[in-house]
Amino acid sequence: MSAHDFPETTATLLVSCDDCPGLVAALAQALFNQGANILHADQHTDTVAGKFFQRIQFDDPELAGANRVAAANRLEATVRTVGARYAMKWWLHFEKQPRRVAIFVSKTDHCLYDLLLRHRSGELRCQIPLIVSNHESLRPVAEQFGVPFRVFPVDAENKATVEKQEIALLQEEKIDLVVMARYMQILSEDFTRCFEERIINIHHSFLPAFAGGRPYHQAHERGVKLIGATAHYATSDLDEGPIIEQDVIHVSHRESVADLVRLGRDVERTVLSRAVRLHLESRILVHDNRTVVFAG
Amino acid sequence: MSAHDFPETTATLLVSCDDCPGLVAALAQALFNQGANILHADQHTDTVAGKFFQRIQFDDPELAGANRVAAANRLEATVRTVGARYAMKWWLHFEKQPRRVAIFVSKTDHCLYDLLLRHRSGELRCQIPLIVSNHESLRPVAEQFGVPFRVFPVDAENKATVEKQEIALLQEEKIDLVVMARYMQILSEDFTRCFEERIINIHHSFLPAFAGGRPYHQAHERGVKLIGATAHYATSDLDEGPIIEQDVIHVSHRESVADLVRLGRDVERTVLSRAVRLHLESRILVHDNRTVVFAG
Amino acid sequence: MSAHDFPETTATLLVSCDDCPGLVAALAQALFNQGANILHADQHTDTVAGKFFQRIQFDDPELAGANRVAAANRLEATVRTVGARYAMKWWLHFEKQPRRVAIFVSKTDHCLYDLLLRHRSGELRCQIPLIVSNHESLRPVAEQFGVPFRVFPVDAENKATVEKQEIALLQEEKIDLVVMARYMQILSEDFTRCFEERIINIHHSFLPAFAGGRPYHQAHERGVKLIGATAHYATSDLDEGPIIEQDVIHVSHRESVADLVRLGRDVERTVLSRAVRLHLESRILVHDNRTVVFAG
Amino acid sequence: MSAHDFPETTATLLVSCDDCPGLVAALAQALFNQGANILHADQHTDTVAGKFFQRIQFDDPELAGANRVAAANRLEATVRTVGARYAMKWWLHFEKQPRRVAIFVSKTDHCLYDLLLRHRSGELRCQIPLIVSNHESLRPVAEQFGVPFRVFPVDAENKATVEKQEIALLQEEKIDLVVMARYMQILSEDFTRCFEERIINIHHSFLPAFAGGRPYHQAHERGVKLIGATAHYATSDLDEGPIIEQDVIHVSHRESVADLVRLGRDVERTVLSRAVRLHLESRILVHDNRTVVFAG
Repeated sequence: MSAHDFPETTATLLVSCDDCPGLVAALAQALFNQGANILHADQHTDTVAGKFFQRIQFDDPELAGANRVAAANRLEATVRTVGARYAMKWWLHFEKQPRRVAIFVSKTDHCLYDLLLRHRSGELRCQIPLIVSNHESLRPVAEQFGVPFRVFPVDAENKATVEKQEIALLQEEKIDLVVMARYMQILSEDFTRCFEERIINIHHSFLPAFAGGRPYHQAHERGVKLIGATAHYATSDLDEGPIIEQDVIHVSHRESVADLVRLGRDVERTVLSRAVRLHLESRILVHDNRTVVFAG
Repeated sequence: MSAHDFPETTATLLVSCDDCPGLVAALAQALFNQGANILHADQHTDTVAGKFFQRIQFDDPELAGANRVAAANRLEATVRTVGARYAMKWWLHFEKQPRRVAIFVSKTDHCLYDLLLRHRSGELRCQIPLIVSNHESLRPVAEQFGVPFRVFPVDAENKATVEKQEIALLQEEKIDLVVMARYMQILSEDFTRCFEERIINIHHSFLPAFAGGRPYHQAHERGVKLIGATAHYATSDLDEGPIIEQDVIHVSHRESVADLVRLGRDVERTVLSRAVRLHLESRILVHDNRTVVFAG
Repeated sequence: MSAHDFPETTATLLVSCDDCPGLVAALAQALFNQGANILHADQHTDTVAGKFFQRIQFDDPELAGANRVAAANRLEATVRTVGARYAMKWWLHFEKQPRRVAIFVSKTDHCLYDLLLRHRSGELRCQIPLIVSNHESLRPVAEQFGVPFRVFPVDAENKATVEKQEIALLQEEKIDLVVMARYMQILSEDFTRCFEERIINIHHSFLPAFAGGRPYHQAHERGVKLIGATAHYATSDLDEGPIIEQDVIHVSHRESVADLVRLGRDVERTVLSRAVRLHLESRILVHDNRTVVFAG
Repeated sequence: MSAHDFPETTATLLVSCDDCPGLVAALAQALFNQGANILHADQHTDTVAGKFFQRIQFDDPELAGANRVAAANRLEATVRTVGARYAMKWWLHFEKQPRRVAIFVSKTDHCLYDLLLRHRSGELRCQIPLIVSNHESLRPVAEQFGVPFRVFPVDAENKATVEKQEIALLQEEKIDLVVMARYMQILSEDFTRCFEERIINIHHSFLPAFAGGRPYHQAHERGVKLIGATAHYATSDLDEGPIIEQDVIHVSHRESVADLVRLGRDVERTVLSRAVRLHLESRILVHDNRTVVFAG
């Protein structure tokens, strides 16, 4: 079920902690005591690492009424109490407050169009108040969808300064998630640390194969029969962040590098928008550089 | 995680009932009170039908020790109590007692081999004490794997009598699940009612397309670009039972009917063994002729 | 290799006829004698029907120079001679003259956007001089891409008259291919006969399953685990025309009808644009209501 | 259409050479002059490398009659003449003489079973006169299918000697193709050179990702969402030979390494048997460490 199908009285709780008996009961009971009704619950125990992961989507009628702020505070306090007891990391997201997303692009438009069209059709539950680029090229697309477009030309010398300006802008705009929709610049460690697990990048190969530059050229050279794309959280280690989603398509000797680029566009945009959607629906937890993805 | 990776102290609970607040908490709390630790929990609410479905896999150390019978009885009593309170339909399956499966075949061997090889390699957590056929052809396969092979020649006249003998045999052998691995006879309503939601059939098309006989001929005639297979619970309405699993492969104008038959074999055996595995791991609930499948 | 990667000296020949020895040699020799160099040749013999199908892509340097009209005429005369000898049906398409495509739409925009974006990025080798609709809704999309948008409101009474106007417009615009990109009107036999094997429709199910209206509702009702889309040439028999391309995606009990509609959009647009591309690259032959598709 | 559907009067010609005008016509004409009827022809030009590749399947009634040896010699002489004119590399394979295949295994049986079952059901057009292993474990499987089983225990010291014995045995048995069906030994350069482009290996990852040992452990560690398998011709560079076929399946955080191993078995056996089948049907040409695969 898609996020936007839920009423504004819905909230989603993500939890991770060391595993121990009684966790499911403790959370369910605490929410029930607050009058919340659990709509969906998905849980995973990593028995090797001894870790517990859970996603709970619940409904609380008071989240829409006059006392909605009090209700939200009350729920948060409840989760904080249970969380403290079990040393949980937790994230509580209220449907009423859609996340704010900034899209970073360079000159390629297929991922940008895909995100904007899905957003317009209601598939992505978020606001998109900002598109950032290091080039002017895609301004017309941004204008077409009425999204502010900010250009920060980057070169080796000004990079540190520019990133500071970008971070300031993102903070000013209260951005929750940065989507690198074929943004052809490597973000510094300072930048990625500021938005840890909140920057999604699309790499145009099935990582770890063909990490680095020109993956379609590498793929053609090696003569693979599959090409793919990988969406992952950006970290300071390029192409090494936690993988969220991957997909591939079959290719043959008939495809030139240009064909791989063309065919790859379809996989890139599909994989990226799936990853963004999973994040917006609070379905992803990260542990030990890997993701737990509670699929919809 | 596969069923056989769990120790014998593991059990799985399947529940369906009308939705109401507090169900998750009630079940989790009841199990916790009995000393059970929840390993995996997956839940689905059909908000349109107002139905609640849950699968809980849990561990109770006492299920292996000297008091294991008492422990099992205690857990069952607990579930019965909660179940009665909420008018639940429920099934509790203990890992220690693998299900007993009978495979029905005619002359085609690919699905039979696939099930027997997967069973031998430990993929299917069950016992296979019996293979039933209306022909002698596959006896050598059964012997190769040391499984008793019983032949019941069927014709229009003796069908009712033969089915009664088969049902008696299945009951004598305490069979929990019947797998129709390309068994080319239609079971009567009497038979399917005896084993409701406990007979899995494989149909060699992506139902509802090409229901009935000779689906590959129908597919070739229509010129489709996909062929598929469907595993479903057998009901008295032929090819109309609840669908468990489906898959397809791409085909082209180059494939003759014989090629479709050959290519289809791969899909049939994969889809059938996936469905059997889902059933053996207590992942399937049926409601309104549709399945809720808690994927692994 | 995509059509637009070829220089303007390239042409493609599609041939179908009764099979007999010497066909490959006759065509290859005739083209060679004219100075043409075969780039790709793909051939299929339907041994059951006794039919021969071939696609030949070749290069003739003279197709670009001052004598290009003479060269094209000369090639056409050559093919006509061989064609007459073997009673061939044949189509010769010169890369220099891209086909002219009209897109028919109603209110849904995802297929339209997909086609326009792929066209703009150079994936579809054609001109799009016209978008036709029975509603005003998608005019802004057409304007955004600078394509003339013509509205013909249709109702039961005016249908015959309107279709005549539409056919006149298509002929005036020298339209080679009509793409029904979720156009929610059934074309009459008169219309489909005017553009035989030149109208591509997208149906939102894996035909022949769920033919007719509201296929996603039908799919949800039946509880299938796959949904799909089918691109086919439109004929007077609704949903019964020759299938060009099909694809599916996996779904589960979690998806509501609204989710199926959303997920289906991705398959619909992919399948439709693949079919349009195959047609534009002269890769499709029709025989006995089935297609021979020489994949790229 | 599968190889074994063709009568014994069928032959297949594979050709590669530098591209130049007239190649298709020259081959087609030469075969036509010999009375051969072309059933299928597939051609590929690598315009970047300037290379021409073709596969022609044809029928010559005389290949079955009393003069069949003379007919085969005549056809071979014809191809030799054309081949010499254009400096072609070519391979002519007569359907009447199925290839002889040796399967190499260690202790894992799923690929072996898959090949033997497909062979028995007529899917693989070849003879399997020999299974070679470095362990006794799979002797019962070989016996079950009546195939001679030869064990050569290998260690670091005796490797060179053992390989010489193996090569001698393969030559004595007139083996055309060696299939490494999860054979856990690395073949020396001497061995691979003896059977250049005639040894098919299955690697249990989507190469080039996770080359080397324990690929499922590597995949789990990296947290990929896809696992795969790669069939390639073995060369002295481990895991670097020309890729014939690849496939993947989706996995999630729920799968342990043991689950990946289990799920991977399905992909491995499918990919390996597809590759073997492609080779047996003379559909593969190698150029510059990449394959041209004329799909069926």
